Amino acid sequence: MRRRSMLAGVATAVGGMIAAGSGSAGASGARLGLGDYRLVNLAHVNDPDRTNVYPGDPEFTLTTITTVPTDGFYLQYAQQGEHTGTHWGAPAHFNEDQPHADELEAEDLFLPAVRIDVREQAARDADYEVGVEDLKRWERRHGRIPDEAAVVLWTGWEERWGTPAFFNYDADGRMHQPGFSLAAVQWLVDTGRLGRRGALGTDTFSPESALDEEYRVSKLLYREHRISLEILANLAELPPTGAHVLVGGTINRRGSGSPASVYAFVPKR
Amino acid sequence: MRRRSMLAGVATAVGGMIAAGSGSAGASGARLGLGDYRLVNLAHVNDPDRTNVYPGDPEFTLTTITTVPTDGFYLQYAQQGEHTGTHWGAPAHFNEDQPHADELEAEDLFLPAVRIDVREQAARDADYEVGVEDLKRWERRHGRIPDEAAVVLWTGWEERWGTPAFFNYDADGRMHQPGFSLAAVQWLVDTGRLGRRGALGTDTFSPESALDEEYRVSKLLYREHRISLEILANLAELPPTGAHVLVGGTINRRGSGSPASVYAFVPKR
Repeated sequence: MRRRSMLAGVATAVGGMIAAGSGSAGASGARLGLGDYRLVNLAHVNDPDRTNVYPGDPEFTLTTITTVPTDGFYLQYAQQGEHTGTHWGAPAHFNEDQPHADELEAEDLFLPAVRIDVREQAARDADYEVGVEDLKRWERRHGRIPDEAAVVLWTGWEERWGTPAFFNYDADGRMHQPGFSLAAVQWLVDTGRLGRRGALGTDTFSPESALDEEYRVSKLLYREHRISLEILANLAELPPTGAHVLVGGTINRRGSGSPASVYAFVPKR
Repeated sequence: MRRRSMLAGVATAVGGMIAAGSGSAGASGARLGLGDYRLVNLAHVNDPDRTNVYPGDPEFTLTTITTVPTDGFYLQYAQQGEHTGTHWGAPAHFNEDQPHADELEAEDLFLPAVRIDVREQAARDADYEVGVEDLKRWERRHGRIPDEAAVVLWTGWEERWGTPAFFNYDADGRMHQPGFSLAAVQWLVDTGRLGRRGALGTDTFSPESALDEEYRVSKLLYREHRISLEILANLAELPPTGAHVLVGGTINRRGSGSPASVYAFVPKR
């Protein structure tokens, strides 16, 4: 039964999210048609030569299996972990009792999005943890984060993709990356900005800083129908407010997530 | 340079397609907001136990690599050909001189969609080839197929998914599946219904019937920025006109396509 839920529950209304996104995040409130949006891909090209594989994750390879001259058609064999390259994460990734990919609904993967620019702080301190005060300061400028939003950190790490600086190991072999503080995520959950659904997004490996060695942020995020969006790209094209993100990728049986294109619908104005 | 094109050319206008879709396909012509659409997933769950792998394609496996009790987090290793399960195809799949996945633009993957119901013909004749007259008859009822559309055949084959009847081998080991006739696809191309971009979609393995052993339909389709949508599901939820499809999946380096979620934006009315 579990495996059928993505199809059975597939026809879902998107109107509520849209209203929340344009109403409460400081946008104009005017109703926008599909034609008023640009489509932006927030994913890196899925390329083994440029992919920093998380320590312990399986090897990522693309192998040419057939070619047009030899076989009549061209095909690659893709072998990769579900959290390799730009990808999304399902609740079961960190919590055994929470849903797998195929237990979610389509609308869990389509969310109003805000982008929090912390590039300056992250450049100063690679262990920077975004706190409640950072989020409140952002809201004073941009308006309230919508309920059940995708809250995306723009740390600048996307510029390091494909280089050792993405891991950012120190002399002791310890990784350093910025992320959300546990307190900030707890505040997002307590106030409904992350609700039954919602997402934490980032251009790093994961929503927590590398200081959070017990992945407490991920364990809190991945409950109910909340997801992660990891190793995002092209965040200069995502505005602070007003966009919606739609997660591509496959819905794997008992999936923990999947490599994905992540699309943003960005208002043209 | 090629590998960067999905990011460099990522910010693309979707307005033109929308206008074509609602104006010329017989819809009301009223401007619809995002909130006026339901989101529908047209992909099967990506499940090795239920996946009919095309003869000669590599094995599809999902392997549990880590678990929460043992490792702290849960992850699967996915190994599959780029055209396994519900997927999309890039022009280079059949034509060496045409674009790979990472040479396309985001808007090539977002198209106005029409659904042609040929379940009755396919049930009578498993080799049924949809002809120009079938398409003209459909247009007399539903209006003109939009320019640069995704033309989706609903053959009923999705009900056979996960069973030998999807291959539909005869006693001589020959496959039988319905599809587009070469003449029909040539007409779609000649008249702009398939333009520089556009798609042929189907709930079978491929847009041609199994009689087309030289894949002439695919060779004609996969030129310029035109793509395939293959092994679609849930086509009862896709209306004959008025929807748009957005292709998920990863953009692989030199990709021939990829396993994907395929989303339809379906007007609620």
